[in-house]
Parts: sequence; structure tokens; C-alpha cells
Amino acid sequence: MVEQKAKAPLKEEPTDVLTLDYNNLAAEVVGNETGLSNDDFARMKAALSLAFKDVESRYRKGLLPFMDLPHDQEIVKATRKLAELGRKKKFENVVVLGIGGSALGASAVFTAVKALNHNELPQNKRNGWPRLIVADNVDPEGFATILDGLDLKNAFFNVISKSGATAETMSQFMVVYDQLQRTLGRSAIRDHLLVTTDPENGVLRKIVAANDFASLPVPPQVGGRFSVFTAVGLAPLAMVGVNVPELLAGAAKAVEDSHKPVAGNKAYLFAGLNYILTTEKKRGVLVMMPYADSLAKVADWFGQLWNESLGKATRLDGAPNPHCQTSIKALGVTDQHSQLQMYMEGTEDKSVCFLGVENYRQNVNIPPIFKEHEELSYLGGHSLGELINFERQGTARALAENGRPNFSLTTPKITAFNVGYLLQTLEIATVVSGSLYNIDPLDQPGVELGKKFTYGLMGRESYSSFKEKFNKGLSVKKKYIVA
Amino acid sequence: MVEQKAKAPLKEEPTDVLTLDYNNLAAEVVGNETGLSNDDFARMKAALSLAFKDVESRYRKGLLPFMDLPHDQEIVKATRKLAELGRKKKFENVVVLGIGGSALGASAVFTAVKALNHNELPQNKRNGWPRLIVADNVDPEGFATILDGLDLKNAFFNVISKSGATAETMSQFMVVYDQLQRTLGRSAIRDHLLVTTDPENGVLRKIVAANDFASLPVPPQVGGRFSVFTAVGLAPLAMVGVNVPELLAGAAKAVEDSHKPVAGNKAYLFAGLNYILTTEKKRGVLVMMPYADSLAKVADWFGQLWNESLGKATRLDGAPNPHCQTSIKALGVTDQHSQLQMYMEGTEDKSVCFLGVENYRQNVNIPPIFKEHEELSYLGGHSLGELINFERQGTARALAENGRPNFSLTTPKITAFNVGYLLQTLEIATVVSGSLYNIDPLDQPGVELGKKFTYGLMGRESYSSFKEKFNKGLSVKKKYIVA
Repeated sequence: MVEQKAKAPLKEEPTDVLTLDYNNLAAEVVGNETGLSNDDFARMKAALSLAFKDVESRYRKGLLPFMDLPHDQEIVKATRKLAELGRKKKFENVVVLGIGGSALGASAVFTAVKALNHNELPQNKRNGWPRLIVADNVDPEGFATILDGLDLKNAFFNVISKSGATAETMSQFMVVYDQLQRTLGRSAIRDHLLVTTDPENGVLRKIVAANDFASLPVPPQVGGRFSVFTAVGLAPLAMVGVNVPELLAGAAKAVEDSHKPVAGNKAYLFAGLNYILTTEKKRGVLVMMPYADSLAKVADWFGQLWNESLGKATRLDGAPNPHCQTSIKALGVTDQHSQLQMYMEGTEDKSVCFLGVENYRQNVNIPPIFKEHEELSYLGGHSLGELINFERQGTARALAENGRPNFSLTTPKITAFNVGYLLQTLEIATVVSGSLYNIDPLDQPGVELGKKFTYGLMGRESYSSFKEKFNKGLSVKKKYIVA
Repeated sequence: MVEQKAKAPLKEEPTDVLTLDYNNLAAEVVGNETGLSNDDFARMKAALSLAFKDVESRYRKGLLPFMDLPHDQEIVKATRKLAELGRKKKFENVVVLGIGGSALGASAVFTAVKALNHNELPQNKRNGWPRLIVADNVDPEGFATILDGLDLKNAFFNVISKSGATAETMSQFMVVYDQLQRTLGRSAIRDHLLVTTDPENGVLRKIVAANDFASLPVPPQVGGRFSVFTAVGLAPLAMVGVNVPELLAGAAKAVEDSHKPVAGNKAYLFAGLNYILTTEKKRGVLVMMPYADSLAKVADWFGQLWNESLGKATRLDGAPNPHCQTSIKALGVTDQHSQLQMYMEGTEDKSVCFLGVENYRQNVNIPPIFKEHEELSYLGGHSLGELINFERQGTARALAENGRPNFSLTTPKITAFNVGYLLQTLEIATVVSGSLYNIDPLDQPGVELGKKFTYGLMGRESYSSFKEKFNKGLSVKKKYIVA
């Protein structure tokens, strides 16, 4: 392996933290049929000016506390202690018990910032930092496999549920609690547990108080999908050695940049471009496509952020919301060989956001062999870093040639700072989008009904009516079942 | 952990291999606005009768050779030898160098059938079978990480490229070839390499011939995304201990069942229902949502199969193809906490296919603790197997209550046979869909242009015009770039 020289493989603009390039959305590049015209851009700018006033005003009134998180010194202090705990206590595994917003932020940053094989390395090659395992499903095979891989004596659990009542997380917690108690004794539980939950309310807070467990608060006004820069994301990240101050510095810079005039404001432009694509161009599907294994989980994290925030039936004025943009995930270059045909020729409902990295932290040179074969000889002497960037640029260009709108976010290098900047920029873009669509980007009313059916089916008394309702519906038609 | 008792958690129909339940698509269940009416079903059946005649006739003429693969005794013989090689030679790692159709089939079956932590177990707990690593990207950090984790002395590489010219795979191969040569000596390469490529054509076949490397053919008439039951999928799977005859027996049963009358024919109904949803109900997005960690990669595999096959601009009669259905992937229950809001309230462009498992191979009991808390006490005494199935059923029901069409494929248990049946059923459904839309489901013309730009940018002489074209286009507008 060689460290990659700090040169961009092509004459792209040199980037500073994050560059947004939307040439391939403009009509003058992709054509009048699918590209954005000057009128579209003017409409976008008008809408963004209003959103800017709205969001800035709410921010100044303290109604958007997720934007203040990067300056929270309390959490920095807490994570410093957790970092010591993670390393000095020689925990082998830190296990997050959490789902959705309680899992995705830590997963995304961990995968981006730490070595891709962090969990596979022996402890001395991890500089003593524990592994991080995020248990975000209740598949019994999956959870049994995680537990079977642990030695409870050197495992640390961070149970994360804002409400304290999340069925999946609490089921996991009950299993772990019982096993810790049986294996190490009740008094030892507190040495292996951190509870992250509401500072005052909920059953988990009661359990913390009754047992004097270590705990950290989820700020009540910050929802799960905006919580990566609270204890929800930062505590497990600190325990496995992520540089929290650097991550937060990047997030702080993104907040600072979000106050700039919209014409040069990436968070607003990201929101505005997608808004116009959705409302004027019928591009209701946004493909988030990182070209880096390390950013694959950022696409998952963004998928929750975008879809749970913008998938709303009703506008704030009570009218039906006619437009939502769904984010789907892809991975470059892999999915060029899987999804690209659909993006190139399929339904005209998509735009693609490429997430590029100019300089990878490691590079691999392709040796100059097989010179006698024309089909291979051009590869030798290049590197995989060049190949992946040429593929990204070639694919973006091919889509543009075919009139398929796409745009790029490019970062010079994956660092905690740049990742913090990226995530916070996308969070701000989400709130700006809420303003553009005139919807509430901070709630998720649609997920309650499924939970109620589950509670009922699991025998929770106060939800027995949902069990009855479910069973009544079970008079299913056999004609629609084929075995 | 306990083995789960063989009882379905609810009174679902007992399943035999695979059950398709489409109650939640019918107007009488989800309502007239979004559900399928009797007229819709009649239209579907008429279209399916025509497709049946078409596909059966092509099958009998030998034009659909992927449907004959389950009876290929040659490949069974070859994989038996490879299984011996995998175990007796004590290879620690089998590494697939392949991308797209050369990677996804092996990934999907491996993840489904083998232990979820197969690669993390020590060799004695793997019954001596090697690990399987699928290198399907050229991210330099990712590929360097894979290589760093290998001891070349006990690593075995299976390079897979039908054409032999896939830039990503051949770059990987050149790196590995060079490293093997330097580390073990040129003559040792053949003991660590299997080449899977076209039986006659392409540069990789030439390299095999010149060096007397072990090789297996990709049947020329079988495309990448239909190749899981050729050497492409089966060779690596056999080497890590997947029961190939059982997998093929399941696939053979699916082919047999596909000859049944369409009213009871799962492959045809899967195609037909999605066709009506897309063409009559504007449901152009199909969410494939397995409720099992082991089936997560099946959704990736299906994503390529469906999108690359059906994302076509032009019909066979030369007219523009007005309808494509895009498959996107989700994972239950995890994505209930990430995507469900969008499926419940977002744009009415989706239907959801739940992929359920009745009995998981392991189960985890939730202990009866925290009885004093109403929010938790209902959980104790249940198992995670019950919880995940109740969540799937509760979510399906919640969507239906909200008028959101969904349907379910359920298998009693994950076995090689049942996975073989599932994948082959979906492949047949894809070809049936091609017939319904009157498009060619077996080609992928849209991916060529991006490849050509990449070749040009990488300096391949015969593609220099694409480099010129690319660079001309680089007169990008600075006004569309924000750093």
C-alpha cells in the first residue's frame, strides 16, 4: 500500500471541507428537458430567501437546538471521561443497544472515521480502543450471534432510548441485564452499563434512578435523527477513540457557514435544488451515492434523516403535502454494476447525489503487468484511488449526457472534522427543506400505528384493542394466498 | 440461546418453501383508492396468460438457459472438488474478485445460509471451512484493508469476470497477481487461483490458457445477474461449505413450480402484481424488505436483478418504455425506525414486499424482569423471534390500514433449499416481467457510456475520444460550484 499523494486525479476544483457542484443539474449542461432553467433557479432562490428568514429566526429563538450542539462543553467533558473508561478499563467491546436515530449516527461516524477493519484488529492494533458493535435489530439470529461473540467481563453496553419504551431496544436491554446479572452478579451491572435517555421522563430514567446506573441525557428538544452530536452518538464514539472535539468543530463550522447568504450556502442550496427537482421536475427520488466504503453508512444515516423528516402527509397549514422526496442509497463504484442501468434508462423520477472523496487515506497501485493485452495494459501504473475517482466522474458525466440530472458533494479527505461538517450540513438542509415544503421536519407521526399493533400483539394490556383489531382483520381471503 | 419451537407465532398460513400473501394489495382490504380491484386482477391475469405462453415457449426453445442451470451435473461435480479443496487445503480465506453479478449472488447465499458470524469464527468453529470475502469495490481503503487482513500463503482467489475486461475486477486481479508473484513466486500462483470467465473469449481466458490456471466457464447465454447458479455463484459458495446440491434442488423446484397455471404460480403472480402496481397504480417503487439479517443481501441481489433487468428506455417493438419499477432495499425491523414514516405518509409511489421468516434458526428469550413497569412487563416471557414476526405483521397491517399496498413472501425457515427456491423464483419473475413490459430483461445497454468515459480517463487508447469529450465538457460553470 502507498499513501496517496495529495493530488486530485483530475482538474476538479480543489475543495475546502466540502464542495457542492451542481453543473449537472443545469439545463445548459444536461439539456432543457430535464435540467434546471434560469427560471427554476430564480424560483429556488426566492423560496430559499423565505426559508432562510424562517430558519434563521427559529434558530435565534432557540427553536432549533440541534444547531447549538456543537458548542455543548458538557458533552465534551463527559465524552473525555468515557474515552478514558473505554481505553483504561480495557473493554474489548462496546455494544450500543439502540435502533433508528439511536444507532445510525454512531454507525455512520464510526465507519467513516475509524479503520474499516477496526473491529477485526487485535487490541494492540486498535491502540487499545474497544470494538464498536451497534445492535440495531431484533433478529434473534443476529442478536444471538452478537451475544455469543462477547465475553461479558470485558463488554460494555450503552443502551439508548429517548423514550425508554422502545420495544426493540428494551427487549435487548432485558436480555443483556439478565445475562449480566446471572454471569457477573447484580452489583457488577453498573460497571458495564451506560444508559442514554431522557433527562427526566420515561421508564429507563426510573431504572437509572433506582439502580444508580451511569447515564447521560438526550436533550429533550432534539429528535433521534438529529442526535448524532448529543450523547446518543458521541458517547459510544468517544469510547472507541473517535476525536469528538474535531467532529464537533466540523459541525460548528457547518452551522457557521449556514448563516451565509444562500447563493453560497451549501446547506440551503442542497435543500433548494432537491426541492426544485421534486416539485418542478418530478424527481421524487434522490439517490445518495457515496464513492467510499467508509461513507456507506452515511447514506443509511441520511436515508433516515431525509425520509423520516420529509415523508409527511400534511403541511403545517393543514393542507395535504403534495410532494415528498424519497432518499435511496447506493454505493459507488459497486452499484454502477447493479443500479446504474436504472438510473441511466429507467423512470425519470430520480436524481443522483454523488458523494466523492478526493484523496483516500490509503491507496493501492495497479502494477504495470499484462502489457501485452490492450484490454488491461491501460490500467497498470494507475492506482485504485484514480480509478474510483475517474469512475465517479465518468458516471456523473454519462448520466448528464443522457439528460439525467446529478450533482456532487466532494470532500478532500475523510476526517472527523469533515464528517462532522457533512452531517451537520445535511441536518440543516433537512430543516431548510421542512421550511420549503411547509411541513414539520422534526416529527414522525406515521410510525405510531405499527408500534401499537406490535404492542397489542405482544400482549401489552393498554393496547389490547389493537390486538382485537388485528385479529378481526385476519379474516383474510385465502384466494390471495399462494403457497 | 434456545432453539425456537417450530410454531408460527401467529395464525399465519403454514408455509411450504415460500408463501405469497397479497391480501394487502386487494381493494377489499386496503380500500378502493389504492387497492387492486377485480378489474385490475382480471387485467393482470390476461397479461400473465400471454406472458406465460411467451416465457414457456422461449424456455422450451432453450432461450432461457438460466432455468436449466439447476440440473447442470457438471457444475455439481466441479463444486464437489472445490469443496474438498476449500477444506482440505486449509485455506483460511477465499476471496472473490468480482463486481455486480459476479459478486451479489455469492454474497446473498453466503449471508443467508452460513452463520452470520462465519467470518469471525476461528477455523475449528467453522468446521474447517474458509472464510468468504467478496471484494466488490475498488475503494483503495477498502481493498487495502482486505489485502492487509490476508496471509497470502493460505488465501485463495476466485477472479470472476465474464468478459475478462471489467476494469474494477481486473485491477484487483493485477494487484493480487503481482503480490502473489512477489510473495510466493510465480509458479505458486496457480495453487491460489480460480478464474471464472467466458469459456472461449476474452483476455482472461487467454491468460488462463497461457498460464494453465484453473478455470470454470460462465455459460455464454447467462448474464451476470442470472448467474448465481453457475460457477460464478456456486464455486465460491462450495469452497466455504454451502450445500450446493440442496441449493440447486430448491432452484429446480422453483422452475418446476413456474410451469403451473398462473393463478397459483408465485413467480408469475409476483411479476404480475408488480406490473399492475406500476402500470395502473403508479407504484413505480418496490421496497424489498426482509425481516432477517441473514436475508439483507438478498435485497441487494434482488436490487440488481430487478433494476438492471427492468430499467429499460426502449421496448422490444422500438417504442419508448413508459414504465419501470425501481426496487429499493430496506431491512426489518431496523428500518421501521428509519424509512417507515416515508412508506406510511410519503409520496404514493411505493409498495412494500415483506420477506418474512417464520422460524429463525436461533431464538432469544426475553426474561420476565421489570414486571413492575407497565411499559416493559409485556415483553418478558416472549422471544425476539416472536417480536420480530409481530413487528412485521403489525407493520404490514398498519400500512394496509393507511391504504398503502403491501404483500409478503414468507419462508418457514432459512435453508439452502428455500433460498435456492426464492432466488430462482425471483429470476423467473424478472423474465416474466420483461415479457409483460415487452422489454429485453437480459441486456444492460445503459451502463456502457460510463465505462467508456472511465476507459478514456484511465488512458485506454482506443477510448481516447471519450477523454476528449469529457475534457471538453469540463468547461464547467464556476457559478454552479460552491466550496
